[in-house]
Amino acid sequence: MAYDSSTRDAALNDAALAQLFTEARTRNAWSDRPVAPELLRKLYDLTKFGPTAANTTPVRFLFLTSPEAKARLSSYMSEGNREKTLQAPVNVVVAHDLDFHEHVPFLFPHNPGAKDWFADAEGRKAVAGLNGSLQAGYFMIAARALGLDVGPMIGFDAAGVKAEFLADTSWAPSFVINLGYGTDENLFPRSPRLDYETAVKVL
Amino acid sequence: MAYDSSTRDAALNDAALAQLFTEARTRNAWSDRPVAPELLRKLYDLTKFGPTAANTTPVRFLFLTSPEAKARLSSYMSEGNREKTLQAPVNVVVAHDLDFHEHVPFLFPHNPGAKDWFADAEGRKAVAGLNGSLQAGYFMIAARALGLDVGPMIGFDAAGVKAEFLADTSWAPSFVINLGYGTDENLFPRSPRLDYETAVKVL
Repeated sequence: MAYDSSTRDAALNDAALAQLFTEARTRNAWSDRPVAPELLRKLYDLTKFGPTAANTTPVRFLFLTSPEAKARLSSYMSEGNREKTLQAPVNVVVAHDLDFHEHVPFLFPHNPGAKDWFADAEGRKAVAGLNGSLQAGYFMIAARALGLDVGPMIGFDAAGVKAEFLADTSWAPSFVINLGYGTDENLFPRSPRLDYETAVKVL
Repeated sequence: MAYDSSTRDAALNDAALAQLFTEARTRNAWSDRPVAPELLRKLYDLTKFGPTAANTTPVRFLFLTSPEAKARLSSYMSEGNREKTLQAPVNVVVAHDLDFHEHVPFLFPHNPGAKDWFADAEGRKAVAGLNGSLQAGYFMIAARALGLDVGPMIGFDAAGVKAEFLADTSWAPSFVINLGYGTDENLFPRSPRLDYETAVKVL
């Protein structure tokens, strides 16, 4: 279905909002339904369009799909995350490319000097952290938009994963996401959220 | 329309994916169509459900909607961002609550000791940065899901905004988003994105 810009100002229907946000849940158990390689590519091809500063797009993804690769990752997960990580059909190591500036002449063609804005390594790390994490947020919502479930986890040995999988790259692991079709097993009750008056100020 | 979990595994239609990702654009000019206060509340009520580590949800939002408040902000924007910030019906200061741990006993009720995980201020800042930025990503996609457009900007004086608006809080400004119904004026041509083979490794 072609995109009609005249409808751009309308909200998605409630079923879509439920799938993306209000009824979506972090999953801790996974069905054995596999995730097709084409779907992983489609997931990236949605994620990549989310906005980043100067189009730097510093996020990188390591998709672990083979039993061998998943077993290599599992030893770096904290104990409570290990079983579900082995069960999920895909484990995603979300990483930030600390040398993302090398791609800026390609990514930001209307300003050839933009690469120089990111000459400082410490400043680059902060830009990669902010924008790479925005993109990780886009990725999780994009996964849900494609009918997938996510289970993000920060309990893992980032230095170990860097050495095991990414030693020859400038990619720094940030966190790990289980990806697939979740089940209701081990599902936490929905935790409370802060109300609007606590989290928002309006002036 | 009620949410039917039997349809949870299906992708949204192409028009929805276009609205959220493939055809959505960062806007640099804004129509005068206002954003209703109820829509801002609905936007928060979608955003809040996105996943964060231990449900910490450290993001905070300052919505500037009155001409007076928007004028106060504009002097802290970098010069190239000033005019469009004044034009947008709503400016959003995205902030991280560096004392988010105070809410953890409420937010993570099944583990009353979880607040102690965040006793260290430096560690807390890193958790707030990662998870608050994930939530900022959820926020921008949620805005598009509601038919709104976004225009994120990092070119602003964060210390000035902190002193002007948030001095009596533990909120640290991260970046600013213009929010409303964008026009095609001053729209950049779509910039390139990294291809799958560059940004993704599959094992």
